[in-house]
Amino acid sequence: MSIHEECGVLGIYAAEPVNAAEIAYYGLYALQHRGQEGCGITVNDDGVFTSYKDIGLVNEVFSKERLSSFPRGCMAVAHTRYSTTGGNRRSNCQPIVVNHQKGSLAIAHNGNLSNAEKLRSELELSGAIFHTSSDTEIIAHVVTRERLRKQAIEEAVSSTMDLIEGAYSMILMSPQKVICARDPFGFRPLCYGKTEDEIYVIASESCALKSVGAEFIRDVDPGEILVFSKNGIESMRGHCNTKERRLCVFEYIYFARPDSVIDGISVHKSRIETGRILAKSHPVNADIVVGVPDSGLDAALGYSYESGIPYQIGLIKNKYIGRTFISPEGRLDQVRIKLSAIEEVIRNRRVVLVDDSIVRGTTSGRIVRLLREAGALEVHMRVSAPQFLYPCYYGTDIDSKENLIACKMDNNEIARHIGADSLGYLPIHALDILSEGRGCCQACFDGSYPTKTFPDMGRDRFERHLSDK
Amino acid sequence: MSIHEECGVLGIYAAEPVNAAEIAYYGLYALQHRGQEGCGITVNDDGVFTSYKDIGLVNEVFSKERLSSFPRGCMAVAHTRYSTTGGNRRSNCQPIVVNHQKGSLAIAHNGNLSNAEKLRSELELSGAIFHTSSDTEIIAHVVTRERLRKQAIEEAVSSTMDLIEGAYSMILMSPQKVICARDPFGFRPLCYGKTEDEIYVIASESCALKSVGAEFIRDVDPGEILVFSKNGIESMRGHCNTKERRLCVFEYIYFARPDSVIDGISVHKSRIETGRILAKSHPVNADIVVGVPDSGLDAALGYSYESGIPYQIGLIKNKYIGRTFISPEGRLDQVRIKLSAIEEVIRNRRVVLVDDSIVRGTTSGRIVRLLREAGALEVHMRVSAPQFLYPCYYGTDIDSKENLIACKMDNNEIARHIGADSLGYLPIHALDILSEGRGCCQACFDGSYPTKTFPDMGRDRFERHLSDK
Amino acid sequence: MSIHEECGVLGIYAAEPVNAAEIAYYGLYALQHRGQEGCGITVNDDGVFTSYKDIGLVNEVFSKERLSSFPRGCMAVAHTRYSTTGGNRRSNCQPIVVNHQKGSLAIAHNGNLSNAEKLRSELELSGAIFHTSSDTEIIAHVVTRERLRKQAIEEAVSSTMDLIEGAYSMILMSPQKVICARDPFGFRPLCYGKTEDEIYVIASESCALKSVGAEFIRDVDPGEILVFSKNGIESMRGHCNTKERRLCVFEYIYFARPDSVIDGISVHKSRIETGRILAKSHPVNADIVVGVPDSGLDAALGYSYESGIPYQIGLIKNKYIGRTFISPEGRLDQVRIKLSAIEEVIRNRRVVLVDDSIVRGTTSGRIVRLLREAGALEVHMRVSAPQFLYPCYYGTDIDSKENLIACKMDNNEIARHIGADSLGYLPIHALDILSEGRGCCQACFDGSYPTKTFPDMGRDRFERHLSDK
Amino acid sequence: MSIHEECGVLGIYAAEPVNAAEIAYYGLYALQHRGQEGCGITVNDDGVFTSYKDIGLVNEVFSKERLSSFPRGCMAVAHTRYSTTGGNRRSNCQPIVVNHQKGSLAIAHNGNLSNAEKLRSELELSGAIFHTSSDTEIIAHVVTRERLRKQAIEEAVSSTMDLIEGAYSMILMSPQKVICARDPFGFRPLCYGKTEDEIYVIASESCALKSVGAEFIRDVDPGEILVFSKNGIESMRGHCNTKERRLCVFEYIYFARPDSVIDGISVHKSRIETGRILAKSHPVNADIVVGVPDSGLDAALGYSYESGIPYQIGLIKNKYIGRTFISPEGRLDQVRIKLSAIEEVIRNRRVVLVDDSIVRGTTSGRIVRLLREAGALEVHMRVSAPQFLYPCYYGTDIDSKENLIACKMDNNEIARHIGADSLGYLPIHALDILSEGRGCCQACFDGSYPTKTFPDMGRDRFERHLSDK
Repeated sequence: MSIHEECGVLGIYAAEPVNAAEIAYYGLYALQHRGQEGCGITVNDDGVFTSYKDIGLVNEVFSKERLSSFPRGCMAVAHTRYSTTGGNRRSNCQPIVVNHQKGSLAIAHNGNLSNAEKLRSELELSGAIFHTSSDTEIIAHVVTRERLRKQAIEEAVSSTMDLIEGAYSMILMSPQKVICARDPFGFRPLCYGKTEDEIYVIASESCALKSVGAEFIRDVDPGEILVFSKNGIESMRGHCNTKERRLCVFEYIYFARPDSVIDGISVHKSRIETGRILAKSHPVNADIVVGVPDSGLDAALGYSYESGIPYQIGLIKNKYIGRTFISPEGRLDQVRIKLSAIEEVIRNRRVVLVDDSIVRGTTSGRIVRLLREAGALEVHMRVSAPQFLYPCYYGTDIDSKENLIACKMDNNEIARHIGADSLGYLPIHALDILSEGRGCCQACFDGSYPTKTFPDMGRDRFERHLSDK
Repeated sequence: MSIHEECGVLGIYAAEPVNAAEIAYYGLYALQHRGQEGCGITVNDDGVFTSYKDIGLVNEVFSKERLSSFPRGCMAVAHTRYSTTGGNRRSNCQPIVVNHQKGSLAIAHNGNLSNAEKLRSELELSGAIFHTSSDTEIIAHVVTRERLRKQAIEEAVSSTMDLIEGAYSMILMSPQKVICARDPFGFRPLCYGKTEDEIYVIASESCALKSVGAEFIRDVDPGEILVFSKNGIESMRGHCNTKERRLCVFEYIYFARPDSVIDGISVHKSRIETGRILAKSHPVNADIVVGVPDSGLDAALGYSYESGIPYQIGLIKNKYIGRTFISPEGRLDQVRIKLSAIEEVIRNRRVVLVDDSIVRGTTSGRIVRLLREAGALEVHMRVSAPQFLYPCYYGTDIDSKENLIACKMDNNEIARHIGADSLGYLPIHALDILSEGRGCCQACFDGSYPTKTFPDMGRDRFERHLSDK
Repeated sequence: MSIHEECGVLGIYAAEPVNAAEIAYYGLYALQHRGQEGCGITVNDDGVFTSYKDIGLVNEVFSKERLSSFPRGCMAVAHTRYSTTGGNRRSNCQPIVVNHQKGSLAIAHNGNLSNAEKLRSELELSGAIFHTSSDTEIIAHVVTRERLRKQAIEEAVSSTMDLIEGAYSMILMSPQKVICARDPFGFRPLCYGKTEDEIYVIASESCALKSVGAEFIRDVDPGEILVFSKNGIESMRGHCNTKERRLCVFEYIYFARPDSVIDGISVHKSRIETGRILAKSHPVNADIVVGVPDSGLDAALGYSYESGIPYQIGLIKNKYIGRTFISPEGRLDQVRIKLSAIEEVIRNRRVVLVDDSIVRGTTSGRIVRLLREAGALEVHMRVSAPQFLYPCYYGTDIDSKENLIACKMDNNEIARHIGADSLGYLPIHALDILSEGRGCCQACFDGSYPTKTFPDMGRDRFERHLSDK
Repeated sequence: MSIHEECGVLGIYAAEPVNAAEIAYYGLYALQHRGQEGCGITVNDDGVFTSYKDIGLVNEVFSKERLSSFPRGCMAVAHTRYSTTGGNRRSNCQPIVVNHQKGSLAIAHNGNLSNAEKLRSELELSGAIFHTSSDTEIIAHVVTRERLRKQAIEEAVSSTMDLIEGAYSMILMSPQKVICARDPFGFRPLCYGKTEDEIYVIASESCALKSVGAEFIRDVDPGEILVFSKNGIESMRGHCNTKERRLCVFEYIYFARPDSVIDGISVHKSRIETGRILAKSHPVNADIVVGVPDSGLDAALGYSYESGIPYQIGLIKNKYIGRTFISPEGRLDQVRIKLSAIEEVIRNRRVVLVDDSIVRGTTSGRIVRLLREAGALEVHMRVSAPQFLYPCYYGTDIDSKENLIACKMDNNEIARHIGADSLGYLPIHALDILSEGRGCCQACFDGSYPTKTFPDMGRDRFERHLSDK
């Protein structure tokens, strides 16, 4: 199994040299929610690539001194990385920069290839060697090999897309061009825009465009390749898939920032909508609606709008959760340290509690208990997603099936398990409403996987690196 | 001028040795919002004091390894520090630990003495030397001198309180006792509670008690000294002031965490209340109410409740603001990087925008512009505090008078300046409602200072330390 | 041009798991003089490779905590790295660990391939991508490709040796074996030994064996491959070259530690010998002989033995030269900060000054001036190497020809230039005596290069990394 | 017991602002051998003191960036610190900077007060509080108190010298002056010089003057106070002691750098002399003389001169011993890792082994064994100091009496214990020759302590700090 890549990518292209590293820094910063494990920036100054990447948040990795030691350049590519346990090592950070026959190549990638192992095995059989366990290095190998047979880097990217399958939104940088591509299903978002100074910015989410002063132009279409070069912007649509779109529904439910708009749909608005649907499908007599911060707040507000039950701020989240926070052991309770109930709001109230998911049930149980201790008369849990029942092969870090509570219990049992008076999930058909009928990947809920290939999740790791920070 | 101390303090007392450092860590973590510049913990293991303090957030300063190298102990005192520009050096971190004739003494202090310079001058004239520019070191000197003449440390604390004037909530630790004291005006909050295991926890705010599993017992009264020792808890009330209470009103408006209860009043509830009062005193025809996160959200909700105008989440704050974040220069806009408007919420709406203060007006102006760009038809600014007109001598870090916009313009001018269609401040008489008639210090709004002494703000600094991180 | 690799390599093989990381640490520490820029250790615990490497000295990179987080293992490979300016980045540290079809492979390498660019170009044309600019990655690629066609890793190493040319002493580690190989010319030293506990240790120099308690067994022969595995030690001698040996003569003159024995010749003894030869070939009437510490001391002693002129300690070297030492600018003199003359020794004496080389002449001039200021009546410079006249293509970091003073001036001019009363170099024929007639590479003195290929020193770099420490 | 202070001090005074921090950096660097635990620099820029100090070597603590952030200034004081186990915390680093009635005061101090505890107790009784356990803070308190009663800082220093007793060479800096003082016995060295640019430099050893280009002027006399100010240099000789001088003899034997000249005697020359005396007092038939590097080399050379037995370099010391080196445990041998014998030199030889001391005998025993393993026929140990028999109260870090081997065994027993064929110590009467009859403190050899007061070595510590690096 290759390492999951729930990440943020960013690219910059300008006709004249600009402070590309600084723009990348603030753009990455707006994508920080997509990955907190590590990050990196590569700037292209007339063919000379300058890189820095490390484990840590954007503001930890890039000091003022570090940032100012980048040269100005017309192009940059940047990445912020999410990592599952075990893979948090420096060498897995991106962008990956490689040197080959035609010059340097930098790649930043978000997603998970479903045929990674097969590709890797084929590459190894033909002599390729791997320094990391990431899908991105596989893509680098394939692009490089294709490049040897093709006239231009974008053609190599195109023929690479004939070979790789799964979720990928990626940005590549050659000495002369920035190229971005989105997989034909459009699993992961990708869009671009332009600043007043004619600097093109490509990013996983539109919030990153806004933060650096770029106007959103449009989403990159599923299957589309965009080439930014001296010749302007060229769109290659050979892999575009007009029939089927499969944006990961979790982008709307959880991953994306609420101020982003993905494939024409406002993330915030879709979350408000899940709340409204929950109110219609699982109504209840209650006094207040409380969301679990931060990702449950929008849906809670939607529930309140639809039901007329007052929205309240009843749970406070400690916002100083850093990468180096020490998890409590023994009697101290992690949920209590991160979340706190406001007794004056909760006491003697019947509470509708809205959260975006229940995975193992442990955290939900503790939040319900927090409300009970604060004096809640009743707690009615409403979840703004359907039940998790299937593993994700495209980059969403879902727990293994044996830990998913919805695989083991029915709704009543779960409600009892977490101590709630009632429990309601988002009906699965509501996901269509969420995507305004355009189609999403909802395999984690219904097991219908878009791709033909699946990774073998059990392959052993041969190499272990000490966490190198 | 000594350095302002808007901080959080924490103390622990148990009859038997406990993992005091771990409890202090999680307690401090809940007080992180009171100061992000530095922090420290001192544990008392049978008279041997073990300390560590440094610049940084709680989770930056205390690694797992560092935390586990503290011994167990019956007592601890801890501190999280806010610092104004220039004073962010390691040696100003607290607790301060000093050694003197009667043993070791650790002090953590929150507040600002109004007669600091006079005391310091007297002490220097009698031969005292100072390593730092903090008020805490002054208190340490006074307590130590008084201790030489008194039988017990608590008597020394009491006679110290005859000499020092201003804002102070402090926790002291001697080899045998933990002592806490709150100034007679009660400028800064202080409370205590107890866990199931009979561990006493003293803290600036009740949220810290909850996070480590301690039940709130009560606030320390203004002027009260509490002594925790083998003899149980002893209250000394010689300095208690029954007539006049002057809790800093800004604790309710801005400093404290909304899930804290201070002097019997819920912070969250008082903020909801300011919103309601604003709605009554400054009503307006509008479509939505939007709060500036995080501290404007509660008041926005109150405004919505009272006015019936729907509450909306229209501004998103990037939550990864770290200590090391690089402020943008040039064309990039700091407000745009930290805050983002949700266009789908704002477009074509008349917006009531609620924030907790306007200081210079710059930030407010940029937020209004953000909403305009997102398509707001009208922006009506409502501020959940009165106009800032006077400097604070008790620890609140308010800008100098020449920068305070309310000192230079009337309301209409300010509204024009920030680009708002209308502007309304919290009426000053509403502060009484906020404190439920018990009295607050509101000198920054009305210039009526409770103390007789004032610091000379212009004294030169003789020593400069390089930022030592 | 690939990056020069004047480094130290180390390998460990035991039948049963041992604390391989600890042995590697102390072994590397004894090889620290061969490279101070970075270092790394990879331990093989039953096929699982655990690695750590970074920029810095051995004792900076490996903390106690870091070292103890390695698992025990039967095998390890380790490296300490010398780097020329510009290449001091983390990713160039070794061992390089790669994953390929047959499992993991770790490589540590000392030397410089003379056909690196050709190989790299061929590899790139067949699709290989490079993450670094080091020769070691080239070797990794070649070995991996050969491995696909061969039955065993050692056969792949052997066929790799058909393809690579130049200086290399390398140690490879596969899941089951440790393999070491020395190029057919034997440019760089390599030897092995065994501890009482039957732990085999392979190292660049014998001093590393001694330091970890291993008895020296023998040098690896030029062209020899040794395979350490469950089957014991196997020697493959297909590339052994009986006619021609070309150990870099600079190993004796400068690189190696004096307590090492290389190819049967004591480094210390050979340096004493150069001093004796200098005394015979360039005698002078003088009062004392003084060596420039550290590498000129042995030759100075030899000069004294032969000439009868008393040996004196007249120059003191500051031993705290660390990696992070700041070089003085302006009026302060770097030589004066690092070296100091003992006036009581030097005053009113005629001094024979012995050093191991003159490169640009600047440092020598300053040392002569130091002695003059200390009162030397005469200064007679004697150099324990011949004149540098040619570039080195095998890993010795010699200045470019235009900077080599011996390319621009004759001996009298140089003597005048550096302010010496006389100057004598080691006669080039003496190098035969040094190597006891076995042959050395002395191309930097006489331009007679053993290999058929030469690197193109002018190739541009396409990629630049910020120094990542 | 206060913490021992075997350290280096440095002061700078110029009429016009200079790059004082840079000069201090290179000066400290030349004094690094006097203390490797920590260091600090304080620059006085027209009354504003800028300080930085931390644990680590000079080149670790002061990065280029850090150094360049100091302002220029007319004055500086600097310190490099040696620390015994347990006291290696940041707050004990020097210079200590304190603020008091008359302004700021910086102090750097080398030595150990013999009446520290009495002074500290008196100060505490009068209300003083202590932040550290160092003698330097005691001196700061006394000087500050005296300053209140005196007209000028130098008079306060003078009356402080009436009160403190023991070893001290110290440099103080007030807003207007740099003052240095040496205790009346002259336990620790102190001298000054001047650069061509009229920058005065005061330092523990003359080697530091040379390294920054200052000409040695003279030693500060025992008991002398020198005041550097706008009025030039003023000498105050009220405490000068013409009868009795007691420079610590260990400065010649071990502490000082061989290129320093202390009180008119060359350190190198005195070490050569101890070797000559040893050869006369303990002659032996042998083939070679070998010194234990670094401090035994000079005496070995002296032994060779006197005896006619050839001097050889037979032991190599690994020079990369850093602060963070991990000491081996178990079977690996620390001596073997740090020292190595050159077999070609030692084999079949009768060796005279010269070292500067035997403390517990453990290390000496291992070195003898190293020589035996390398093939020595005989090993004759010669020690360039007399037997250690008494504790030092003035700053030399000597082991406790129960560990001193000379307190427990006679010479024959020690020789047997360490495995030597014979053993000879420097005769105690030779110390007179060493000091050229001027008198030294040799209490550690003969128990005759110059001071009237002695510290109580058993006082408990009340405070423990985590190592804060």
